[in-house]
Amino acid sequence: MAHQAILTFQTRGRGTQDITRAVAEVVAAAGVACGLVQVFVQHTSCSLTITENADPDVRRDLETVMGRLAPDGDPAYRHNDEGPDDMAAHARNVLTDTGITVPIGGGRMLLGTWQGIYLWEHRTAPHRRTVVVTVLG
Amino acid sequence: MAHQAILTFQTRGRGTQDITRAVAEVVAAAGVACGLVQVFVQHTSCSLTITENADPDVRRDLETVMGRLAPDGDPAYRHNDEGPDDMAAHARNVLTDTGITVPIGGGRMLLGTWQGIYLWEHRTAPHRRTVVVTVLG
Amino acid sequence: MAHQAILTFQTRGRGTQDITRAVAEVVAAAGVACGLVQVFVQHTSCSLTITENADPDVRRDLETVMGRLAPDGDPAYRHNDEGPDDMAAHARNVLTDTGITVPIGGGRMLLGTWQGIYLWEHRTAPHRRTVVVTVLG
Repeated sequence: MAHQAILTFQTRGRGTQDITRAVAEVVAAAGVACGLVQVFVQHTSCSLTITENADPDVRRDLETVMGRLAPDGDPAYRHNDEGPDDMAAHARNVLTDTGITVPIGGGRMLLGTWQGIYLWEHRTAPHRRTVVVTVLG
Repeated sequence: MAHQAILTFQTRGRGTQDITRAVAEVVAAAGVACGLVQVFVQHTSCSLTITENADPDVRRDLETVMGRLAPDGDPAYRHNDEGPDDMAAHARNVLTDTGITVPIGGGRMLLGTWQGIYLWEHRTAPHRRTVVVTVLG
Repeated sequence: MAHQAILTFQTRGRGTQDITRAVAEVVAAAGVACGLVQVFVQHTSCSLTITENADPDVRRDLETVMGRLAPDGDPAYRHNDEGPDDMAAHARNVLTDTGITVPIGGGRMLLGTWQGIYLWEHRTAPHRRTVVVTVLG
């Protein structure tokens, strides 16, 4: 039997926010000893990623890398209705993750010591984002 | 209990095709109220992605971005047996998704309003592609 | 009911190693006819990918592509405590997969003929890596 929760997060514009604790609370409430938890963002201009939770410079450098791979305001983009960050946000979403899955063992997520789950806003303006968390065991 | 279907799609060469409806039909037939559906492509030169389903320019711009990240005919490639798009297709596959997972709630996929599931052909020639859809609940 | 195994692998520094057989053994032992297997790496500087298992030049070329997208020793990186490959490894991890999911049918993974599952070390030095394999059916 699956357990599911819909979470909403207010972002502050482009950047990452740690949602590990919010996901862990859904896993704890599900009472599943062994299984999987899937986290899914219902949007195409933000994404999810698992990355280092210790030095915030890692996430800052990830923005630098993404800014080169999918630059804002690229004159080659045709889709720019909502501004120079519009298409860049879709490209960053495709290069990262719309959904991530983490194993559950002993009733908790089996993340490594240095792994955190991040909601990554790719638009420069703040947005309200919906995340679906599903636990199967 | 898992429900599974094997789907085949004929691609028309490089580009995206919306397979959301085909996946939704497998989910509806499974009769699972709450759970997950996983979509998996059995190939290494095409992929899956979830992206905006409204403006087709988004998918066109994604091709532009990918063409820069993994250009055809790069002289640095050693693997080019099947032509200049051969290695570029493998690289595009690795940068996007071989498998995607979508939550199911109320018996249907919990996609956002603007999210579509796309089969992304990375070879320039048309191919017949096999996609495995698995529903767990 | 879920089946889970924790595997460890010794890497030889940057590069890929085929772990398909090790994952297949966990699937066989689980005795699940139809379902999903998820493979998860508990680290942020190595990753998993599914790519071609025939010509090793494909994986060599993937290193070339990654070396351009996330170059070692980029002067723009702030996070470089562990050397020029430190931040590059985190970026390569984010651009590829921390977890991959493969469908199971007839008691075995439904991989395509040319698909292999690879553990991808992004650090230049050898590391001991932990991989969690979870089977649901």
